[in-house]
Amino acid sequence: LFQVFQLGLQGIKAHVIDALPHAGGQCAELYGDKPIYDIPGIPVCTGQELVERLLAQIKPFAPDWHLGQQVSQLAAQPDGRWLLATTQRTHLLARSVFIAAGVGAFVPRTLKVEGISAFEGSQVHYHHSGPTAGQHVVVHGGDEPAVARAITLATALQQLQPDAPASVTLLHRRDVFDAPADLLAQLQSLKASAALHIVAGQITHLHAAPGPLGPPQLTALQLALPDGSTHTLPLDTLEAYLGISPRLGPVAEWGLAMDKKQLQVDPATFATSAPGIYAVGDINTYPGKRKLILCAFHEATLAAYSAAEAISGQKITVQYTTTSPRLQQLLGVLPAATPSPASP
Amino acid sequence: LFQVFQLGLQGIKAHVIDALPHAGGQCAELYGDKPIYDIPGIPVCTGQELVERLLAQIKPFAPDWHLGQQVSQLAAQPDGRWLLATTQRTHLLARSVFIAAGVGAFVPRTLKVEGISAFEGSQVHYHHSGPTAGQHVVVHGGDEPAVARAITLATALQQLQPDAPASVTLLHRRDVFDAPADLLAQLQSLKASAALHIVAGQITHLHAAPGPLGPPQLTALQLALPDGSTHTLPLDTLEAYLGISPRLGPVAEWGLAMDKKQLQVDPATFATSAPGIYAVGDINTYPGKRKLILCAFHEATLAAYSAAEAISGQKITVQYTTTSPRLQQLLGVLPAATPSPASP
Repeated sequence: LFQVFQLGLQGIKAHVIDALPHAGGQCAELYGDKPIYDIPGIPVCTGQELVERLLAQIKPFAPDWHLGQQVSQLAAQPDGRWLLATTQRTHLLARSVFIAAGVGAFVPRTLKVEGISAFEGSQVHYHHSGPTAGQHVVVHGGDEPAVARAITLATALQQLQPDAPASVTLLHRRDVFDAPADLLAQLQSLKASAALHIVAGQITHLHAAPGPLGPPQLTALQLALPDGSTHTLPLDTLEAYLGISPRLGPVAEWGLAMDKKQLQVDPATFATSAPGIYAVGDINTYPGKRKLILCAFHEATLAAYSAAEAISGQKITVQYTTTSPRLQQLLGVLPAATPSPASP
Repeated sequence: LFQVFQLGLQGIKAHVIDALPHAGGQCAELYGDKPIYDIPGIPVCTGQELVERLLAQIKPFAPDWHLGQQVSQLAAQPDGRWLLATTQRTHLLARSVFIAAGVGAFVPRTLKVEGISAFEGSQVHYHHSGPTAGQHVVVHGGDEPAVARAITLATALQQLQPDAPASVTLLHRRDVFDAPADLLAQLQSLKASAALHIVAGQITHLHAAPGPLGPPQLTALQLALPDGSTHTLPLDTLEAYLGISPRLGPVAEWGLAMDKKQLQVDPATFATSAPGIYAVGDINTYPGKRKLILCAFHEATLAAYSAAEAISGQKITVQYTTTSPRLQQLLGVLPAATPSPASP
């Protein structure tokens, strides 16, 4: 987010792509409600508060948001620009690309069961699937997202709503769930009314059968139960909520110089080994690197200057937000300069 | 101030020396009441607000303050430590010294008149002089500090206070003063009552005479008046308030590698060319350097890690204030660890 701010001060408009469905990355996702004490000038704030403060700060520079999608491709163009494609098929052509990331993209943890990839996107989902009317749905997971989803589906079933599934099973490795008390109470009530089944077990393998349209269909999960027995759980749809974890993902395939899992950058410019691609935050490495938020603020700033110089072909001297009318106009705290009447 | 914070997180206690009589340096002095828009996570704050936020943040690490004094000497000791002396004769022996500065120390602008240095500290002052009872005092300057000081002295004279001077003259190059309206009104009223003289003119040279104790004494200022005439202004004491300006001062004499007026540092450690001496802020230079407050936050952080490694002789891995009980104890947000009963 601070990269957007510093680019804004350079008069450069940003598009933000994030695998998460909301802004804030690791700060929002890993310590949204936990205190941070070392942001300079902010004795304490939570991760989410920091995100909100930064969102307020970048408001004048209104970036274009492309959330819930991951950059899947980054290809050099003959004119020196980069063509970028996302998992949602967004395409962008840019002179500068800033990889402002931690370990990588926060993506849902996937199931590690042999043969599962054949069904991912059709019968197996790591988010809400499409319509589930009349289907046997298994919701997999032990935390709030799984519990909340199972309650929603089972409530539809209990109330005989037209889009209700045929059955709802909440599958977790053990019969203990981590969710707010009111959700746990609803879960017990739905279980008591038989609108919801709860199964404790681990998926060992999949059962599939030839599908009516040709490709095989997932028909059941083979489970190992806590008592050592096995159980076959038929289903049409599996929704797994196993948490999210950061993964480097396609960044490793773009041919950028790396050291272990970090992108090597020049600490004077935060440029990677590819012209026009910069890296800031925990994902980069340089002599003396410390993985701290406040260091990433510095990195984003120097990267913005460096990109602005590369784009303009000129040396750019520091201007100060305290004194520069131009920066204050960009920030919206001074009225924009009136264009000269002579200019078209 | 953020250097104190980062040292505190490393368990290192700091002494702060500043030429100004208050904390905050350039932020407090040059843009105390002006807005800053580019502190990460703080959409807008004044320089003084930033200082107050940082003072709140470093509270757990209570540094020792040595204000209103400048480091005058820095000498390497045989054991690798540095012996530091200030203009107030404070002496400190330290393993690490952090030059966390802008252009240098903020010191009062001095008069540029031939022969003046012989009287500085005795009859010529750049701050309040000692007792002025019965003396002819000239206050020199056009801004609020000069106006306020002239009012104080002239009021004592008007009220026939026992410590009142014999006369008060406010000298400025022109008869226009930059001070709040209520002070300007008081000035006019004191002038009307003849408790205060106002003279517009520039000092061209000094008149001196042999003093009763041997060394010559300043007896009068020779002035060039706006109409081209000259005037001789007798006096006992001159107090000049000509603003303060940052000056590199003795830093240039410590043998540290410099580039123009900046200290060369290694951007991985922010070490200068002398072991144990670090430089952060506008006073340093390295490839890509941008003179921004937020960059200095990063620099101070890496300097603290670097010093802590040099002192301990060990590699120090990053700990996070969000998760580290040790850091939270240092910050005072977790109770201090109870010492084991076995330890003395």
